[in-house]
Amino acid sequence: MAGNTFGHLFRVTTAGVSHGPGYLVIIDGCPPGLPLSVDDLLPDLRRRMPGQSSIVSQRKEDDAPEIWSGVFEGKTDGTSIGILFHNKDQRSHDYGDIKDKYRPGHADFTFDAKYGLRDYRGGGRSSARETLCRVAAGAIAKKILAQHGMCILGYVKQVGPIVAAITDPTQITLEQVEANEVRCPDPAKAVEMKALIEEVRKDCDSIGGVCELVAVGVPPGLGEPVFDKLKADLAKALLSLPAVTAFEYGAGFGVATLRGSQNNDAIIRKADGKIGTETNRHGGMLGGISSGEPIICRVALKPTSSLPRPQRTVTKAGEPTEIATKGRHDPCLLPRFVPMGEAMVALVLVDHWLRFRAQCG
Amino acid sequence: MAGNTFGHLFRVTTAGVSHGPGYLVIIDGCPPGLPLSVDDLLPDLRRRMPGQSSIVSQRKEDDAPEIWSGVFEGKTDGTSIGILFHNKDQRSHDYGDIKDKYRPGHADFTFDAKYGLRDYRGGGRSSARETLCRVAAGAIAKKILAQHGMCILGYVKQVGPIVAAITDPTQITLEQVEANEVRCPDPAKAVEMKALIEEVRKDCDSIGGVCELVAVGVPPGLGEPVFDKLKADLAKALLSLPAVTAFEYGAGFGVATLRGSQNNDAIIRKADGKIGTETNRHGGMLGGISSGEPIICRVALKPTSSLPRPQRTVTKAGEPTEIATKGRHDPCLLPRFVPMGEAMVALVLVDHWLRFRAQCG
Amino acid sequence: MAGNTFGHLFRVTTAGVSHGPGYLVIIDGCPPGLPLSVDDLLPDLRRRMPGQSSIVSQRKEDDAPEIWSGVFEGKTDGTSIGILFHNKDQRSHDYGDIKDKYRPGHADFTFDAKYGLRDYRGGGRSSARETLCRVAAGAIAKKILAQHGMCILGYVKQVGPIVAAITDPTQITLEQVEANEVRCPDPAKAVEMKALIEEVRKDCDSIGGVCELVAVGVPPGLGEPVFDKLKADLAKALLSLPAVTAFEYGAGFGVATLRGSQNNDAIIRKADGKIGTETNRHGGMLGGISSGEPIICRVALKPTSSLPRPQRTVTKAGEPTEIATKGRHDPCLLPRFVPMGEAMVALVLVDHWLRFRAQCG
Amino acid sequence: MAGNTFGHLFRVTTAGVSHGPGYLVIIDGCPPGLPLSVDDLLPDLRRRMPGQSSIVSQRKEDDAPEIWSGVFEGKTDGTSIGILFHNKDQRSHDYGDIKDKYRPGHADFTFDAKYGLRDYRGGGRSSARETLCRVAAGAIAKKILAQHGMCILGYVKQVGPIVAAITDPTQITLEQVEANEVRCPDPAKAVEMKALIEEVRKDCDSIGGVCELVAVGVPPGLGEPVFDKLKADLAKALLSLPAVTAFEYGAGFGVATLRGSQNNDAIIRKADGKIGTETNRHGGMLGGISSGEPIICRVALKPTSSLPRPQRTVTKAGEPTEIATKGRHDPCLLPRFVPMGEAMVALVLVDHWLRFRAQCG
Repeated sequence: MAGNTFGHLFRVTTAGVSHGPGYLVIIDGCPPGLPLSVDDLLPDLRRRMPGQSSIVSQRKEDDAPEIWSGVFEGKTDGTSIGILFHNKDQRSHDYGDIKDKYRPGHADFTFDAKYGLRDYRGGGRSSARETLCRVAAGAIAKKILAQHGMCILGYVKQVGPIVAAITDPTQITLEQVEANEVRCPDPAKAVEMKALIEEVRKDCDSIGGVCELVAVGVPPGLGEPVFDKLKADLAKALLSLPAVTAFEYGAGFGVATLRGSQNNDAIIRKADGKIGTETNRHGGMLGGISSGEPIICRVALKPTSSLPRPQRTVTKAGEPTEIATKGRHDPCLLPRFVPMGEAMVALVLVDHWLRFRAQCG
Repeated sequence: MAGNTFGHLFRVTTAGVSHGPGYLVIIDGCPPGLPLSVDDLLPDLRRRMPGQSSIVSQRKEDDAPEIWSGVFEGKTDGTSIGILFHNKDQRSHDYGDIKDKYRPGHADFTFDAKYGLRDYRGGGRSSARETLCRVAAGAIAKKILAQHGMCILGYVKQVGPIVAAITDPTQITLEQVEANEVRCPDPAKAVEMKALIEEVRKDCDSIGGVCELVAVGVPPGLGEPVFDKLKADLAKALLSLPAVTAFEYGAGFGVATLRGSQNNDAIIRKADGKIGTETNRHGGMLGGISSGEPIICRVALKPTSSLPRPQRTVTKAGEPTEIATKGRHDPCLLPRFVPMGEAMVALVLVDHWLRFRAQCG
Repeated sequence: MAGNTFGHLFRVTTAGVSHGPGYLVIIDGCPPGLPLSVDDLLPDLRRRMPGQSSIVSQRKEDDAPEIWSGVFEGKTDGTSIGILFHNKDQRSHDYGDIKDKYRPGHADFTFDAKYGLRDYRGGGRSSARETLCRVAAGAIAKKILAQHGMCILGYVKQVGPIVAAITDPTQITLEQVEANEVRCPDPAKAVEMKALIEEVRKDCDSIGGVCELVAVGVPPGLGEPVFDKLKADLAKALLSLPAVTAFEYGAGFGVATLRGSQNNDAIIRKADGKIGTETNRHGGMLGGISSGEPIICRVALKPTSSLPRPQRTVTKAGEPTEIATKGRHDPCLLPRFVPMGEAMVALVLVDHWLRFRAQCG
Repeated sequence: MAGNTFGHLFRVTTAGVSHGPGYLVIIDGCPPGLPLSVDDLLPDLRRRMPGQSSIVSQRKEDDAPEIWSGVFEGKTDGTSIGILFHNKDQRSHDYGDIKDKYRPGHADFTFDAKYGLRDYRGGGRSSARETLCRVAAGAIAKKILAQHGMCILGYVKQVGPIVAAITDPTQITLEQVEANEVRCPDPAKAVEMKALIEEVRKDCDSIGGVCELVAVGVPPGLGEPVFDKLKADLAKALLSLPAVTAFEYGAGFGVATLRGSQNNDAIIRKADGKIGTETNRHGGMLGGISSGEPIICRVALKPTSSLPRPQRTVTKAGEPTEIATKGRHDPCLLPRFVPMGEAMVALVLVDHWLRFRAQCG
């Protein structure tokens, strides 16, 4: 109840801090019989890893998962899956500054206000390193979903003012996304984005952006009609990630200026005989339930709060001061965010898929 | 687990359909000793009620709540609060059209796909009339929050392209909001908005918009650091409302084009000695936990899907056809949405306030 | 979180007090397509009803359920099922005594200690009338289970020192149980039990007893291996009923004096080729998971606490006094308990059956 | 939802198997500021450990916990507490027999029936080694409870037919319990019990027993009035432990033969002015809520199912065969059960104490 568990039937619980011994993940409710090994987790973990390119954090982390339980002779056995990550790159830091000063944009002050104390080493529990647990769990979720024809893909849509030109989100491939370090499937814009990211880094600054996430193959019927609408659970899942400040699906904020006659998607019978919609301004969800059309949503990420330039703040005692964050931070969070966003979408979909199977069999 | 319950410690469970006998609400976990009567629920229920002005639905609904339990001698007694609403205005409809045809933008098709059958009378369980349960529960939540200095206010920020000029969201008063039928605290823009709403109605059309929600007096420390971030739970709560397609808080999607040095709010000691921030681009939440600054968020609502003009669709059998929705629908959902949005924010805050009290007491 | 909801996937939430307007039940997660009407609920409700015979409470209650939602054209539609019960027999009581004095064996003192106030009218929320909500929900659960070959039956095994002779619990029929007012399938012992119950009533006293519950047709595989063992959830379900003070399954407390070589059930292949056990001291559950053998458990019920004879107690202010409970109480709770116990077993089984379907599908 | 989590506000989630790398425990919701180190966990872990005396299993396990998170500078910091246990004594076993044959009294068959596969190494997830996670979490719970004056103590009440003579359960001390290897505070009976345990071991057999658990200092008001009664949650907690087949509190099954006038505890004002009861047949709980009197309950444990003598069973294919379990099993589970039972009682009490604080402040 203190929020370290996500999901109802496919349930992920995590513990760990960035500068302690490591992280623990427990995944409860995974269907038995799924082939699973560490190799299934590595690809997405590598997409999340720092040091993967020149435009992300140059920290050296070792994100090698150890599966301790829940997998037997190469298959999930229906019991809780326990995964460990050791923290390797724990330099002996001088935390003096961060210990006594509140970093702007960070949870330092709010942790102190909430708990009366805080693990100040590298952000403690609020460190974004926690997302490696989510990415590992998401990789398992993706594998289950793939067995049932569902596929999730994210990409960088915008960095600062530079917006990728995407004609059809459902046609983007993983190869296109992974073709450049920015994870933007518009190659020309990716070049511009990279240049901007390098520029802000040189300025000791950071830059925000937008990630778009697409799920194809989702059958109609996932999501609950009242409080647990699929759109609501996706919003929660994505807003639970660090730095995300906004969520929209389908036409999103754009609906504000549309008329109903413009916004409604005509319902049609498709070439394959299935009922669907002509357009997809509804982003694959109607009444909170998947429609069978691709699910499309977008989130905004704020620019990294940690900046190597001085920023005004106060000490714990309330005295005005400045702080410049040392360390090796991402000048733009977007490239490494893509697998995190995909993981959260996958966790929501697998949970709702199991819920559907329970009730509607 | 089929999504008819909201909240963890302050828990709202609902049942009912728009054209059945009525609605049931059970609120579990309310602190004992709170003075409570039907009169506490009526103001917000009236703000939600159809027929309240010329620019909303002209349906006649009777939203008189009956409190059956949980209140004894004028005070909550700690047991589950049971509230009933009778449906009164159930005209003998001819549902033939809606029974066999899928309304664009509605949950008709997705309900059929999920459950294999659907209550087609007036939308059944997907009817927005269900929100009166939320508004009733939200009124109780607001009363608890008010005891602890927290106050929530929403207003219409945008209708179609018309955007209200709001200098300081935290200075808006309920009186300003209720001063016009649109619930827009910018009187000049409210006139324009009303004219636009009347115009779209004459066109047999509808229009979308944006609602802004503000919570003041929220102490620092509410919200959980990982999955149950306050921003995540607010996003879920608001996206669980019908027609909401987007959520943002603080600088929201605007962060995409900002640099860290522009976006970070300097931390300062305020005149009253408390630690806070100079600006509030973080919308009152840092690391998913309230910072003590006002919580500010916005949601977009799509234009009403029900239109009295013909729209292309198919029958249940998949045959192409058209449908024009009869009935008395809102040409713009925004004016009646305001109390719904406030209710959901209140339910999230009271739940997190109880969670805080449990753990950090 | 204040304990008015039971179950995870098949979820029952209740509100109401014995001397208020009535009770509300919301059942969430029922599979769609189940034929259901009020007539399905009545048989078990009548078995629970006061006034059904000379040896139970002579109160006149009207236990006519109203289904407000979740059923459409005779079938469940997958949305939350709302059921109402009106309280009819609310005589204008003089509650003076019970208001200021704590009844021994009742929750009067503990409610005051917990909440600081209490609805003293007829026990308020602690009244056993609340169990009619459970029996209604249980009737729906039984119907689902019956579709999958599962059947639950309870009966009175013991009243005071009189113990029924039951050769094979799995061969008892509903007809045998309902053949007498005690609900004891041993006709000779039933006569003795009835005489004892009449005797204690004449003595202004009450008597305890034991109910045995049997579930046949439960497939192997229901129940979770660690915390949510089937035996654990059955224990919780049954202990959540008023007056239950003990639970055992299979050999129960008798295992204390057994050796492993005596207690272990030999595993065999049965005539139908299925694997099972030769004996059933394990009561149908091994490692917390159903084995396919009949599930057999027993609970003890204390004698009714309300007695029409004076008992020593104190006033709210702590002054010594006496109280003799007026009203029409059961001299023995067992006969009316049988459908309550069956209902709770049914709720546990249907919940675990849905959980099984979700994970192991 | 697959049952690897216990509790609502103080939430314990576990993973791990007896013959894998080890166990993971995540404790969520612990109040911040509690002094905590590994040393706090060791005493109860040692009471649970095999090899501690001649009458328990002679396995060599290394139950040294590693705290990975949630504790900072010697105090809990409010974030999830992650604890690891490495499995050390993993001899290279020949599992052939247990792999293909179902052990009587074990979960081998039910796991296969549920999941379609099973980790057959030493019982896999159904191994009682899992309880070391519970004992670790329980030690933390006990420490919180102690801060608020609550103390839990268990002891062996019965082994086979030998029953300890306990005059006043609330006067038993930890020293008396730990004074002998049986953990029975009646020294004379402890000698007899030990002799019986040694005898059954020589017979290649095992023996059952009864454990009594007492919680003193529990304030009135813990527990919820309907489904989450304190007695119900205690029953679930204790029945969730391996080998437990029965639960009773207060007068327990004995109530069956009592009259109300015998069973009701007179309510009195105590010497300290507090309201309480003269006797405690209600075992410290009325209406499912703690009364302030000591909480007293008992559970029965079956004799160890693993026996070194041949028992009849079948192979996975259903062929009749025999199995004699190798290994170093406890001839009687009771001595090592005591800290497990205490841990589960502690987890229930701390959860309800937090729930009380949330709602009733």
